Amino acid sequence: MFTDEYFMKMALQEAEAAFEKDEVPVGCIIVSSNRVIARSHNLTETLNDVTAHAEMQAITSAANFLGGKYLQNCTIYITLEPCVMCAGALNWSQISKVVIGARDEQRGFINKNLTLHPKTEVVTGILANECSQIVLDFFRSKR
Amino acid sequence: MFTDEYFMKMALQEAEAAFEKDEVPVGCIIVSSNRVIARSHNLTETLNDVTAHAEMQAITSAANFLGGKYLQNCTIYITLEPCVMCAGALNWSQISKVVIGARDEQRGFINKNLTLHPKTEVVTGILANECSQIVLDFFRSKR
Repeated sequence: MFTDEYFMKMALQEAEAAFEKDEVPVGCIIVSSNRVIARSHNLTETLNDVTAHAEMQAITSAANFLGGKYLQNCTIYITLEPCVMCAGALNWSQISKVVIGARDEQRGFINKNLTLHPKTEVVTGILANECSQIVLDFFRSKR
Repeated sequence: MFTDEYFMKMALQEAEAAFEKDEVPVGCIIVSSNRVIARSHNLTETLNDVTAHAEMQAITSAANFLGGKYLQNCTIYITLEPCVMCAGALNWSQISKVVIGARDEQRGFINKNLTLHPKTEVVTGILANECSQIVLDFFRSKR
């Protein structure tokens, strides 16, 4: 039951919540022992803050829940490949696993040759079509 | 009077405030039209949050002050070269100028071949000795 697809669907629900608020639709959740300990979506427009990406909020929230700043034994599910800022934050967090929906070839960290913490496992392509489609739909609606 | 050294001294005062709190002593200020609109220092231990670097707080604070998320016509003075996370955030902010005290060859963004926004001017080496000395003193006190 607790597959990567199961949790990515929850991250997609967060992306949908962002879309409803006219935010670039990216969502994420952080899971520890199959329990969701943080959920968030992009709020850069609502908060007028370029740092308010889904991942940044979730990292702060999960650390707050755990009472420690390192997210060992945690997995983050993100609908879109993290940008340089969020990859840097994930690196500091020492999170165990990063599961990515759609790739972001232009703004994502992978093509910038950045690596996360050596302990961090990275998986890409979980529900990739759904995760990229919602972003495409968003930008199409803006044209 | 309003030289880079003048404002870097204020950033160094922030780094000293971090040192007093047993935080890695990095400080920064953001200036717009020679007016300080944000000041902050590293609070990762105090807040139990890897994202609580001086620059991240200052970017959020300055955007809040300005009522907009882009920091055009602003200069950030940082005692230590920004890490990947903070460089990513500065890139999103489109800040006009980044003035760096000491280089951070290991964890800084420059050796990672990351660039900031094309509009952003970067200056390094302002009060570099003082800015690196406070970090060296901090880690020496930990041994």
